[in-house]
Amino acid sequence: MREIYFDNAATTRVRPEVIELMDRVMGEDYGNPSARHIIGMKAENHIRTAAQQIAASLKVKPGEIVFNSGGTEGNNTAVIGTFLARKGYGKHIISTNIEHAAVYKPLEFLQDMGCDITIIGTDSKGHIDKEGLIAAIRPDTILVSAMWVNNEIGAVEDIPEIGRLIKEKNSRTYFHTDAIQAFGKLTLRPREANVDMLTVSSHKFHGPKGAGFMYINEKAHVSPVIFGGGQQKDRRSGTENVPGIAGTGLAAELYRREHDEIIGRMLRIKNRLTDRLNAMDGVYVNSERGELSAPHIVSASFEGVRAEVLLHALEEKGIYVSSGSACSSNHPAISGTLKAIGVRKDLLDSTLRFSFGIYNNEEEADIAADCITELLPVLRRFRRY
Amino acid sequence: MREIYFDNAATTRVRPEVIELMDRVMGEDYGNPSARHIIGMKAENHIRTAAQQIAASLKVKPGEIVFNSGGTEGNNTAVIGTFLARKGYGKHIISTNIEHAAVYKPLEFLQDMGCDITIIGTDSKGHIDKEGLIAAIRPDTILVSAMWVNNEIGAVEDIPEIGRLIKEKNSRTYFHTDAIQAFGKLTLRPREANVDMLTVSSHKFHGPKGAGFMYINEKAHVSPVIFGGGQQKDRRSGTENVPGIAGTGLAAELYRREHDEIIGRMLRIKNRLTDRLNAMDGVYVNSERGELSAPHIVSASFEGVRAEVLLHALEEKGIYVSSGSACSSNHPAISGTLKAIGVRKDLLDSTLRFSFGIYNNEEEADIAADCITELLPVLRRFRRY
Repeated sequence: MREIYFDNAATTRVRPEVIELMDRVMGEDYGNPSARHIIGMKAENHIRTAAQQIAASLKVKPGEIVFNSGGTEGNNTAVIGTFLARKGYGKHIISTNIEHAAVYKPLEFLQDMGCDITIIGTDSKGHIDKEGLIAAIRPDTILVSAMWVNNEIGAVEDIPEIGRLIKEKNSRTYFHTDAIQAFGKLTLRPREANVDMLTVSSHKFHGPKGAGFMYINEKAHVSPVIFGGGQQKDRRSGTENVPGIAGTGLAAELYRREHDEIIGRMLRIKNRLTDRLNAMDGVYVNSERGELSAPHIVSASFEGVRAEVLLHALEEKGIYVSSGSACSSNHPAISGTLKAIGVRKDLLDSTLRFSFGIYNNEEEADIAADCITELLPVLRRFRRY
Repeated sequence: MREIYFDNAATTRVRPEVIELMDRVMGEDYGNPSARHIIGMKAENHIRTAAQQIAASLKVKPGEIVFNSGGTEGNNTAVIGTFLARKGYGKHIISTNIEHAAVYKPLEFLQDMGCDITIIGTDSKGHIDKEGLIAAIRPDTILVSAMWVNNEIGAVEDIPEIGRLIKEKNSRTYFHTDAIQAFGKLTLRPREANVDMLTVSSHKFHGPKGAGFMYINEKAHVSPVIFGGGQQKDRRSGTENVPGIAGTGLAAELYRREHDEIIGRMLRIKNRLTDRLNAMDGVYVNSERGELSAPHIVSASFEGVRAEVLLHALEEKGIYVSSGSACSSNHPAISGTLKAIGVRKDLLDSTLRFSFGIYNNEEEADIAADCITELLPVLRRFRRY
């Protein structure tokens, strides 16, 4: 059976070139980068190369890249590490109501530690209330954390404009953006956008799981949240995950080289699927088209059908999608973002996310749409009885 | 040129079987374990298998295994996570003067947060002062953290006896052991040893870097230190590093199956090298023989030669060793353990660590010893002028 994997916002298949490089690092250049002999130096070289590849993608300095275990650790470091380093300046942090749990859970933790948190709302398309955010900035605001691309509906936030306004209001407020769904999908220029910290996860762009990185502006003071041997200039202790880092660098480099082609193809898939879904009765597409939405995500609500049921019906046809946000599918609470943007209550539990990667094509959008067209009346009929 | 890698306590070459499995997970079973379709379930199965393989090694329940990014994260979680979960009971923690930075740096962090830390000394062979440790336990002692095998000289601590004595004195005191150098080298039975938390790093036993796990007794209350999507029953958030976890499980399983053979070979290499070093003038072996010392580590001090110089001279002959503790070679401060056990001041900077893995053999010990015999008089002469 032909399989269509439309769950790339949850995770992606690792590229063969990346696997090949990681194999070589694991089997040959396996040294500890801290070791003072040649096997250690070869390992260290892989880290240097990866930092250069990523820095080239973001147009920042290689020394501003810190490798870690993935997006969750990165978001925790941005939020908690800023608090630890800057609680002397203030204890006020601003975020939004559409952040991933890896941002809002650390915020809840800090609230228990005496931090004052302000949450800003979004409009019906998931765009952050910029005026509200800026109005909330106080002299003691140490951090604003706002995601670049929402993981559930793909809304693209105006991070450069938000960054400019934050620094205008309070130049001492740090700006962090969760770019986990943005890296490789948009052109990201954190320095120009006044972003002090940016979080990326490797397995979202066909790199390895258990790996990720942060851009941390060289002037920003952020405490580590994991302490130990002082690796990576004391910014993240622990023997570096050299194969994961090398794989991350290569995956980033391949995305950079093929950027226009990859984005073009994703957009065609997205537009095709959106057109087809829009033509169906009782189907509501939550994701926008155009530049205010990411090229790889289509969220849609299916009136009269439970998401779980449609998901498994599609699975039987070899089509893999996600209900709500896959990252928290173990906690089947209703999606935070869908509620935040005001999706009708009866549709909250009837929403699927289709998300695309480099191995998808336009034809797959048609096959998926055909399957849905066939399934919807059947599943709706079942439901009635 | 023949290469002899005697730096396995720093890190190891990944086994080909492990690489092969990881390749399959990255390229085929690449789903997000939280996803509700079959590709996600296949990924989840790899995690379940790995937990079973590790649980079999430790004779604990699979549900007591929590996967993470490695030993540094594990030690941080044990120390900081216990404090976060139990600061209501007390703020006193006991540790030793030979711990790895991944334990003592988090302790320093907690000290700044108002925690009271007591550090216990060791004897000239690196064995913890048990009576001193037990005498230090108070009603408000929430944690004792003591490593199972020291990473610099290989001293094996009597963890089962220490565990028994701790619980006898204060049944509410948690016991954590850093078993990063112990796993695969000794038979570990944390449950019988009254250990509540145990930390392991995969790349020390021919598994992948960037991966590791903790045993956390099912009754222990330990807070996570990384917050997010609630994966692994809320004990460690973040999309699981499925290839790293699968590779860790297989590496543990292979060690378990071949345990006697691997340990026997390491012991022969260790004894051979120790004999040869003991026969040299002005060479002092810091590691013991027998059950009070790990089979894979020989630390030796070379009078009249700087460690760095001997290390590079050996490197030129294709022999790779470590000066001090490789994990902190970026911070070339004098080793904590060597000072703690009272190594002569003039030898502190003249000490090398030879450490063995599954790919070493006895002949290599002889080759290394021959090289040292040849090099020592030359290097000592150079030093004189």
